[in-house]
Amino acid sequence: MIHSDGFRALDRQECLGLLAKMPVGRVVYTRQALPAVLPVNFSLDTDSAVVLCTSAASDLVRAIDGVVVAFEADDFHAERRAGWSVVVTGRAAVVTDPAEHERLSRTGPRSWMPMHDGVFVRIEAEMVTGRELTGVTG
Amino acid sequence: MIHSDGFRALDRQECLGLLAKMPVGRVVYTRQALPAVLPVNFSLDTDSAVVLCTSAASDLVRAIDGVVVAFEADDFHAERRAGWSVVVTGRAAVVTDPAEHERLSRTGPRSWMPMHDGVFVRIEAEMVTGRELTGVTG
Repeated sequence: MIHSDGFRALDRQECLGLLAKMPVGRVVYTRQALPAVLPVNFSLDTDSAVVLCTSAASDLVRAIDGVVVAFEADDFHAERRAGWSVVVTGRAAVVTDPAEHERLSRTGPRSWMPMHDGVFVRIEAEMVTGRELTGVTG
Repeated sequence: MIHSDGFRALDRQECLGLLAKMPVGRVVYTRQALPAVLPVNFSLDTDSAVVLCTSAASDLVRAIDGVVVAFEADDFHAERRAGWSVVVTGRAAVVTDPAEHERLSRTGPRSWMPMHDGVFVRIEAEMVTGRELTGVTG
């Protein structure tokens, strides 16, 4: 389908390179049996896992800790009808190891909201897919 | 949670007003029991339903016709740590009525890809939620 619908498939390295440039992506998950999506700032860990920082008491943590989620980022230009999107699919887990938490406190993302109970959530880059629309006229 | 995490909740009219300004949003659904997300250009119908135009043979149509999906759009500015996001949740359905298809062919979105089997998909605006982050320093 990638080719039949006018998109070019991106390989894993292209996807991760584009993802690394974006400050905000979207966590895609299920909440109360309904599809849910939440934009968050993020960073990529050394193993390419997506890392978020959020409140330990948040609905998001309750919903995604230990389950497979998708994480999406994209950049489209409407006037050129061009752009790209990348989706990382993998298991999300709150970082509970103190040394890992300490490491991510130095190297990981900072929440855009003030918070006293911040935790890091890693989304493993088990499946990384992306596509590019190079521009279509008409 | 909306207030405790530093966001302001947006009402339905604010949400629809912001949504109407965006050319691209993201369909959030389930594919083969995994969370899935696909950016698409869209327009809002007169009843505020989200309207997409895609290939009748697409994986997207197979996955979402007749089921409840989420549709998300957002606009964030990393340097100001400010922005907004809106999520429409409702049943998606391919438009099969010829008169409706004809109407949307005039008023609805045009696919960014050339396509010979284009169909319109409406996502009913059953639940519309949004939040705004007005900017946080530090």
